[in-house]
Amino acid sequence: MAFLKKDLPKRSENLSDWYNKVVLLAELADYGPAKGTMIYRPYGFAIWELIQKEMDALIKEKGVSNAYFPLFIPESLLKKEEAHVEGFSPELAVVTIGGGEELTEKLIVRPTSETIMYDAYARWIHSWRDLPLMINQWNNVVRWEKRTYMFLRTTEFLWQEGHTVHATHEEAWNMVTWAMDMYTKVYTELFALPGCVGKKSESEKFAGADVTLTYETLMPEGKALQSCTSHDLGQNFSKPFEITFQNQEGKNDYGWQTSWGLSTRSIGGMIMVHGDDGGLRLPPRLAPIQVIVLPIKAESTLIAKAEKIKDELTKHGVRVQIDASENETIGFRINTWELKGVPLRLEIGAKELAEEKVTAVRRDTGEKIAVPLDEMTTTIPKLLDAIQANFLAEAKQFLKDNTHTASSSDELKQIMMTSRGFISALWCEQEMCEKKIKEETKASTRCMPLDAPDEDGTCVGCGNPAKHRWMFGQAY
Amino acid sequence: MAFLKKDLPKRSENLSDWYNKVVLLAELADYGPAKGTMIYRPYGFAIWELIQKEMDALIKEKGVSNAYFPLFIPESLLKKEEAHVEGFSPELAVVTIGGGEELTEKLIVRPTSETIMYDAYARWIHSWRDLPLMINQWNNVVRWEKRTYMFLRTTEFLWQEGHTVHATHEEAWNMVTWAMDMYTKVYTELFALPGCVGKKSESEKFAGADVTLTYETLMPEGKALQSCTSHDLGQNFSKPFEITFQNQEGKNDYGWQTSWGLSTRSIGGMIMVHGDDGGLRLPPRLAPIQVIVLPIKAESTLIAKAEKIKDELTKHGVRVQIDASENETIGFRINTWELKGVPLRLEIGAKELAEEKVTAVRRDTGEKIAVPLDEMTTTIPKLLDAIQANFLAEAKQFLKDNTHTASSSDELKQIMMTSRGFISALWCEQEMCEKKIKEETKASTRCMPLDAPDEDGTCVGCGNPAKHRWMFGQAY
Repeated sequence: MAFLKKDLPKRSENLSDWYNKVVLLAELADYGPAKGTMIYRPYGFAIWELIQKEMDALIKEKGVSNAYFPLFIPESLLKKEEAHVEGFSPELAVVTIGGGEELTEKLIVRPTSETIMYDAYARWIHSWRDLPLMINQWNNVVRWEKRTYMFLRTTEFLWQEGHTVHATHEEAWNMVTWAMDMYTKVYTELFALPGCVGKKSESEKFAGADVTLTYETLMPEGKALQSCTSHDLGQNFSKPFEITFQNQEGKNDYGWQTSWGLSTRSIGGMIMVHGDDGGLRLPPRLAPIQVIVLPIKAESTLIAKAEKIKDELTKHGVRVQIDASENETIGFRINTWELKGVPLRLEIGAKELAEEKVTAVRRDTGEKIAVPLDEMTTTIPKLLDAIQANFLAEAKQFLKDNTHTASSSDELKQIMMTSRGFISALWCEQEMCEKKIKEETKASTRCMPLDAPDEDGTCVGCGNPAKHRWMFGQAY
Repeated sequence: MAFLKKDLPKRSENLSDWYNKVVLLAELADYGPAKGTMIYRPYGFAIWELIQKEMDALIKEKGVSNAYFPLFIPESLLKKEEAHVEGFSPELAVVTIGGGEELTEKLIVRPTSETIMYDAYARWIHSWRDLPLMINQWNNVVRWEKRTYMFLRTTEFLWQEGHTVHATHEEAWNMVTWAMDMYTKVYTELFALPGCVGKKSESEKFAGADVTLTYETLMPEGKALQSCTSHDLGQNFSKPFEITFQNQEGKNDYGWQTSWGLSTRSIGGMIMVHGDDGGLRLPPRLAPIQVIVLPIKAESTLIAKAEKIKDELTKHGVRVQIDASENETIGFRINTWELKGVPLRLEIGAKELAEEKVTAVRRDTGEKIAVPLDEMTTTIPKLLDAIQANFLAEAKQFLKDNTHTASSSDELKQIMMTSRGFISALWCEQEMCEKKIKEETKASTRCMPLDAPDEDGTCVGCGNPAKHRWMFGQAY
């Protein structure tokens, strides 16, 4: 790794330059040769593996099974649900040649798997005894992009997509909220990314859904990032796909469906929010390397001690690596691991060796802590927990400081011109008005928070009666 | 699941009918809507997850990191290594439309990732310090097929592909053999599938490799299945892709490369070899459900006992499920779980309840064993180990019984006409002769076993001098 600190723009001065550069320099990702594509390098992919491991356990605990459906969807299948195909058609990649021959029917590279899964579900479901059917996939999907914005906007990305069928709408709705609760837990506890959970407006909801729930996070420059979604599909797909079942009364009924997904975009949000001028800052629970051990010099006694520390911490479930590169100065090595966002650095020099301790340096605060070696296996995990908690506290504070209330159109504009952020405002829920607000302020509805009470007021856009307070923001 | 035993053809009478049917009835997989594609259903995918878990640990232990490279390879990139593109071009799927527009350069859906990975490797590798570079991917690849043969031959399949770069050929060769040793361990210990390990002939090796090692297994009708491969790529790719590094003497050198892969095809081989007229028989280590507990009747005391047994065995690391369906007879349930290949069935009725035991029935032998409940947590895991060992012993015996030696062309023909199987014979290693043998007997060279000694004899095909004994067989 040939990294020079001066290569990294300041995050505080130019967020998007900093972002593009830090992703490359920290070796999280690289550009792919085809437009809009990216390579997940080992360090970046390891973050996704940690996310997968935790989420996969939660998904299985709920009784959802993993499966794998084909990448290629015949065009006719994709067209079965009108709103769905209309929403996705501008961003499709299409296979027209297979095995050297022009295909008689074009194949769509899946942008999402509703249609190909539900075609099979219709064959598999016969009776109420077959329900609920709950399947998840970890796979790659393709939605055409002309320019790569690493992790955040790419032609191909990795995600999980859960797809369930239930006998009643109530059960389906419980699944929709279960998924969003699971995502909230993951975002809060692993990513240390608080967000706003709510319902999407009619124009912003998923193509084919009755209701879309979203988790919206706030990026440092005050823009909102849609971070995952959970959809109540009603019977919108079960009718065209003929997913019917015989209910307990012996009558045929259409299934009630849900789908929900979280993608590698989540990693982009985490990089943005937690990073600083020195580079990445990874929350310990998603850090592939939680502790980097740096012998001050490449001396055999120091390296031997480093190895011992590594072994002991590894035994206690900590992810540790040693960097004892002979040909790099300690300053260079410190910069490198700071850039890579490792939460905790342990330095060992002659002094530490003599005093039977290590110097621990927190990536989040820069604080230096002398840790006696015989307390290490309890102190280090505690420090990692403290760092994890600090990231969440910081992000919560940022979210709080950047959530505003607007009671008039002028106020909304004013906030958007100065600080952006989340803006809570009453809205009439009319599409025309939403469009006008967006044109005038760049702010679109992000969601109606789930816990929003009924109110009686006037719309921030048009002045007509409004019943709910929505969260506005500029979308990524 | 609406399964009737009479729906399943006898494996002993018609292997391929039995195979197609058992895969569907056991709910391992289903046909996808596009030609040649298949759906991995939860029960089938769970087998792949077990394989992944074990192999991923072995791969990481070796120091190989996981990453993810794009699905789409620009046509120009694929064409950089001549033999490679020539080998793959007849089976490519090609994207010609993206985001509603005709593409200026066609994108190939990866049939394998050498070219797209090595294009990046060239950017990442500068010095001997960057070597070895060892990356693995778990992904989906596409090679066009007109007809689906579940798991064994499909347009899209899942696999892992490892790709490494080394400073010397010796190191690279060590990696090639490490990978094949790892596969041998996995095939032997998990799949219970013994095989023949050896070198492919020039005409059968991977497009772009200097040497291809293969693991060849033998299917019940005497055909050979290429079950995974490991390639010594020499500098065949590093030269066109310009993967160069500064060596320790300060000079530029081309990297030495390897690639190796194992796919979901492996599951097909396992189904074929271990199944019987009653359906699947899964080796315990790859069985998503290792133990099925069947209360003879749907009575609450029996069900409560079944739950207790499940909890206790689960705590001891056994994968257990209960089937207490009220609406199915015990006979129907037994048939169902036999079909699904669950290694061990525990029956509990009034008698078992009174005597504080369960009746364990082995799927491999049909043997019934009374297991006292207080010995269950030691006896059941031991029984599972015994079943695993028995599968391997059976398959080894089959392989031994069906490995023949031919010393003349007539003898080779005779064996191929009667029993097929593996046939060991001296061969001159000339491509023309290999082709002629295949035309006359349907047998092609499977591999030259790695442990084959040098010999002095005459070729089984042409009578010319031959130095090595090769394994022949009819390929799948």
